[in-house]
Amino acid sequence: MSGRGVTFARGFSAGAVAAGVRDPSSERPDLALLVADRPCVAAGVFTSNQVIAAPCVVTRRHLAAGPLRGLVANSGSANACTGERGERDALAMAEAAARTIGARAAEMAVASTGVIGVPLPMERVLPAIAAVRPSSGGWEDFARAIMTTDTRPKLAEREVWLRGRPVRVGGVAKGAGMIHPDMATLLVFLTTDARLDAATADRALRGAVAGSFNAISVDGDTSTNDMALLLASGAAEVDVAGDALEPFAQALGEVCHDLALQVVADGEGATKVFAVRVRGAASAEDARKAARTVTSSSLVKTAIHGADPNWGRILAAAGRSGARVDARRASVLIGGLAVFARGAPADPDPAAVRRAFESSSIEIDLDLGLGQGSATAWGCDLSAQYVRINAEYTT
Amino acid sequence: MSGRGVTFARGFSAGAVAAGVRDPSSERPDLALLVADRPCVAAGVFTSNQVIAAPCVVTRRHLAAGPLRGLVANSGSANACTGERGERDALAMAEAAARTIGARAAEMAVASTGVIGVPLPMERVLPAIAAVRPSSGGWEDFARAIMTTDTRPKLAEREVWLRGRPVRVGGVAKGAGMIHPDMATLLVFLTTDARLDAATADRALRGAVAGSFNAISVDGDTSTNDMALLLASGAAEVDVAGDALEPFAQALGEVCHDLALQVVADGEGATKVFAVRVRGAASAEDARKAARTVTSSSLVKTAIHGADPNWGRILAAAGRSGARVDARRASVLIGGLAVFARGAPADPDPAAVRRAFESSSIEIDLDLGLGQGSATAWGCDLSAQYVRINAEYTT
Repeated sequence: MSGRGVTFARGFSAGAVAAGVRDPSSERPDLALLVADRPCVAAGVFTSNQVIAAPCVVTRRHLAAGPLRGLVANSGSANACTGERGERDALAMAEAAARTIGARAAEMAVASTGVIGVPLPMERVLPAIAAVRPSSGGWEDFARAIMTTDTRPKLAEREVWLRGRPVRVGGVAKGAGMIHPDMATLLVFLTTDARLDAATADRALRGAVAGSFNAISVDGDTSTNDMALLLASGAAEVDVAGDALEPFAQALGEVCHDLALQVVADGEGATKVFAVRVRGAASAEDARKAARTVTSSSLVKTAIHGADPNWGRILAAAGRSGARVDARRASVLIGGLAVFARGAPADPDPAAVRRAFESSSIEIDLDLGLGQGSATAWGCDLSAQYVRINAEYTT
Repeated sequence: MSGRGVTFARGFSAGAVAAGVRDPSSERPDLALLVADRPCVAAGVFTSNQVIAAPCVVTRRHLAAGPLRGLVANSGSANACTGERGERDALAMAEAAARTIGARAAEMAVASTGVIGVPLPMERVLPAIAAVRPSSGGWEDFARAIMTTDTRPKLAEREVWLRGRPVRVGGVAKGAGMIHPDMATLLVFLTTDARLDAATADRALRGAVAGSFNAISVDGDTSTNDMALLLASGAAEVDVAGDALEPFAQALGEVCHDLALQVVADGEGATKVFAVRVRGAASAEDARKAARTVTSSSLVKTAIHGADPNWGRILAAAGRSGARVDARRASVLIGGLAVFARGAPADPDPAAVRRAFESSSIEIDLDLGLGQGSATAWGCDLSAQYVRINAEYTT
């Protein structure tokens, strides 16, 4: 972890307390507030899962209603599949948070993560919201409070000079499991002190998410609670428009990319990360499909876990990805070493292949030899520890 | 295992020898022949993976050329991603097998399973083919020779009376890993002594595969070598036409279903199987998508492994399946026990839910509450043993 996350940008404070959402006796912070000094232009992307959690529904509505003043988030319960009560509870969280910071409920975002199908213990959640004391130093408490099976907080920040002034972008993410986002990953909160209009904020967020959170996979499952939010305070007094657009988008993209790779590296049970760079695909969409499918193949992931140089599984995964693949034209490189060249096995030194597979960060290049499409995706290995974590998640 | 597999039907013999495909010093049978007394009407379905193995290419060509006299199969190497040499080797196997049994090469099917990207050791394979002595008692040798990580042979048989005569259908399958067929599973060989025309054989095989091998998942990966073949000797002297069509199709379907469930139960590292019965879907295709996605979700599979009653993952998987899902109308039952009813958590006895999850054969019912579509799919749990098997597959 590095940086001050959501409080790096000027105009934001954060804090967290232990509400005991899942376990009343726990003292681990599990309820967090992010507060902006002033109303923020905001943008959000949400899970593409049709089973969408109540806090996502409420936040989407509040986003559509105008600027945001902050957000309230909890871990321990996803408040998903909780029926009509779920939406009432999410709204009650927004109302309590709004009271705490002197805002309106519709100015608050709500996010939850944890077990699906378990209602929130509102008798503990509401008093906890009133007890949070946000500060400019609260970034780490905030980051820890939204963790579930994450082993470490995930923070990132960038500063970029626009029109002669420093503009800050920071963020926090939580990940670990159910990671194969189709809109965003579990929870990502980004803040900036740049001044953005709503359309620019939306475009910048979608662009940054596409190349980062939507390009990683831990286990191929898409959460019911995925949410990525960007809040722009404007405190830096720099308008992001014209020639400032591109450097701002780049800074935001870098923060998202940094957080996304932290999420993969801290995937449940992960001991290694790997990048799959596809080029020569018939289209960019084909490249993305092939790269995503290879990163989510259980057989590729276990081979990487065991440093087993079973590269044929990479081609087999690409071949079922839906992308156009012709094995006679394809090439595969592991750590820069050709193992399959234009349709036939290459004959690399087995010890060198083995060494490439043993690296804790593996680069796989797949050239489909068909066109100009390219894309990169990132994944982690599949270990026995992943199984252990998920075989006893609620118990 | 039960039955005499491919030699249950009259007119077939089988045998196997140790060729040492993967390990020259191994005495495990890994090369098998199936021989028909006379030319057989034949049908086949093959992997939908675009990276298709050489033996599938050769067999598809031979099927199109007319009746088959038999097949040669090996384990230890998939002969996939082996370049132009792969096709020459597969053809050389067909030629050697044809010589051994006095047929033409174009009358032989060829099948391979094992590691991808490793050429076949033809200097050992060709002499082994000549050394096989097929007999009517060779079903188990045959079944064992095509195993890779399978822990037991998979055999099934049915006898059905058609037009006053007994007609036999038998089969053998190998499975274990890379099981999420989109056309057929790894290797399935079916024989019958019924008399079929080619179109009827093709239709009957496709129907039987759809409800069996195409409805199971072990790890979501689709093999490069999937192949299901049906050979009909006609030795029972009963034509499958008119009112004999339906009972024959049923017998074939039962053999395939029996074999498919054996494949799931012997999935790599599997300790439990589960069925997902979806009804109330907007369409049959939606029901199939939802059922298949739930059976292949790593999070559902690990929860079942650990008997963790984390049923929210079932809804989350359905929600990302591409099927239309509205959580407010959905219901979920585990072992007949309602855990989620028309959009809200039910309140079942936790001990009863736990017991339902502890069963070695779990039935999950998912009613989407939207229409008339229904489908069932079968899967197995994901264990640490799966990871171990696949982390060191080639080493």
